[in-house]
Amino acid sequence: MASNAATVRHARREDVPAILQLIRELADYEHELDSVEATEAKLLETIAFALSSDDNPDPSATSGLLPQTEPTSPSKPARCLILTTPAGVPAGIALYFYNYSTWRARPGIYLEDLFVSQSERGKGYGKRLLVELAREVVAMQGGRLEWSVLKWNEPSIKFYESIGAKMMSEWVGMRVDGEGLNKLATLLG
Amino acid sequence: MASNAATVRHARREDVPAILQLIRELADYEHELDSVEATEAKLLETIAFALSSDDNPDPSATSGLLPQTEPTSPSKPARCLILTTPAGVPAGIALYFYNYSTWRARPGIYLEDLFVSQSERGKGYGKRLLVELAREVVAMQGGRLEWSVLKWNEPSIKFYESIGAKMMSEWVGMRVDGEGLNKLATLLG
Repeated sequence: MASNAATVRHARREDVPAILQLIRELADYEHELDSVEATEAKLLETIAFALSSDDNPDPSATSGLLPQTEPTSPSKPARCLILTTPAGVPAGIALYFYNYSTWRARPGIYLEDLFVSQSERGKGYGKRLLVELAREVVAMQGGRLEWSVLKWNEPSIKFYESIGAKMMSEWVGMRVDGEGLNKLATLLG
Repeated sequence: MASNAATVRHARREDVPAILQLIRELADYEHELDSVEATEAKLLETIAFALSSDDNPDPSATSGLLPQTEPTSPSKPARCLILTTPAGVPAGIALYFYNYSTWRARPGIYLEDLFVSQSERGKGYGKRLLVELAREVVAMQGGRLEWSVLKWNEPSIKFYESIGAKMMSEWVGMRVDGEGLNKLATLLG
């Protein structure tokens, strides 16, 4: 934490405009800006935010990042960490939810999106966000911190491996969405 | 539902011995029996079960599978559907949790494990469980139903594609667990 004076905390409802801007910047970077359906209203509905604007994380706790937040629920499964620069500018986000390992019968964290602004790269902010999530997993006696990366993104993969992540190369994800989802839901009448 | 008289419902606490047996059968099938750390006590702690033993899903609802269940939470993120044969024997499970799409700012479902007993294969039970999950995603106005499959498991991949799933071949999963997790959590002191 001492390496820089950036602050990481749970996002509050008033951070939503900054969060949306960072999401759009990430989408633009991935050439996916057209795919962004997120709006401020939708983010407010689906993210469990920190409850008060004066929550003051206790830095002596195992994880200083578990203040009072709205409870997660099936319709509001996500949490969001926000990193602000020493100047107070929001520069990074980690959007995540709680996953589960059947073998271990333990919860864990799945990091859906990690993003640091182009202009704030190279300062260890991405690592800082990952460390905070690892702390939350340890604090909750969870089993795993997981995420996905685009296969062509070798610099990211190398970085992730350098901080202890293993590539799950033997697995591939499957997804049903859009029309396919409606079709599957009505398949058996 | 008419194609067979199997029943699918949210698992109740008294189903835990059957669930553990099915988990162990799945692990054995994947030659991973030694990796199973799940116990009845751990499953009881980490799965949000249906609350009463006489919950009677309303078959006229969009999804008949959303009875009163314990609330999900970070330490209890999983839900479990259980399929019983016409003879009343537990023959399949779907263990899942709620995920999130940032682009869409919508929740969804991630299917962590789907398993049907060896002796009960070929009866459409796997499809039945997937259809029930797709219904829950639709009912919650969610965006996606997702899961992972071992790349060598071509019969499963073909089956999944036949019911509308797309392979996310351009992505690879990353995982930090065990000692790596403790190390990451203490990386920045």
